[in-house]
Amino acid sequence: MRQRISSARVARLATADTHGTPHIVPITFAVDGDTIYFAVDAKPKRTTDLKRLRNIAANPEVAVLVDHYDEDWSRLWWVRVDGTARVVDDGTDADRAIALLVERYDQYRAARPAGPVVAISMVRMTGWSAS
Amino acid sequence: MRQRISSARVARLATADTHGTPHIVPITFAVDGDTIYFAVDAKPKRTTDLKRLRNIAANPEVAVLVDHYDEDWSRLWWVRVDGTARVVDDGTDADRAIALLVERYDQYRAARPAGPVVAISMVRMTGWSAS
Repeated sequence: MRQRISSARVARLATADTHGTPHIVPITFAVDGDTIYFAVDAKPKRTTDLKRLRNIAANPEVAVLVDHYDEDWSRLWWVRVDGTARVVDDGTDADRAIALLVERYDQYRAARPAGPVVAISMVRMTGWSAS
Repeated sequence: MRQRISSARVARLATADTHGTPHIVPITFAVDGDTIYFAVDAKPKRTTDLKRLRNIAANPEVAVLVDHYDEDWSRLWWVRVDGTARVVDDGTDADRAIALLVERYDQYRAARPAGPVVAISMVRMTGWSAS
């Protein structure tokens, strides 16, 4: 499951606000030990796009999904990580996380993410595979 | 946005329990008007895989994401549907939804989903595109 997470180029992040309304966005990410990092990129965003950060501030419980879709359904699989998220306030830690992201994605070299960076501590990993 | 949803082969569904803990799974689905249908397929599942149904029973608010990942990040896009979900109890409605799913996915012809079927009424649609 760890290998599948580490190899994936994109994941989907689910958060929920204090009313329990779920929210979901795709994320690019880097894994370091038991922590998943993602950054809000440098592109201009509407405020609504930061709902993920507002949710995390109000409710740190998140779920991250990595999955593979294939028209051959015997090849389907997914891995879900349940965890707790926090915005990384420490500048050194944030810089290190951004370095991991830049190392992993060439695309970030041209446009280094401005942050903020979010760290998700993995609490539980669940997987399923059709085969 | 509707076209992108209708063309997608897979989506990701976020639900949350009454404590606000989010959950996320990939789904195959069919759209009919303002309703997204998915079914729990006929394969044996562990109880934990039905967390999505327990969440929906306790808290009908859900989010569905359709997105495109591409190494060319100028081609990234996503569409998110916020909606309310319910298990379809009426047999005729469930049969109709399953027929839509079978029509859409050849894979379901060999293994018709046993149900239950979930209907998600679209409340809001939000989209983003890098280009």
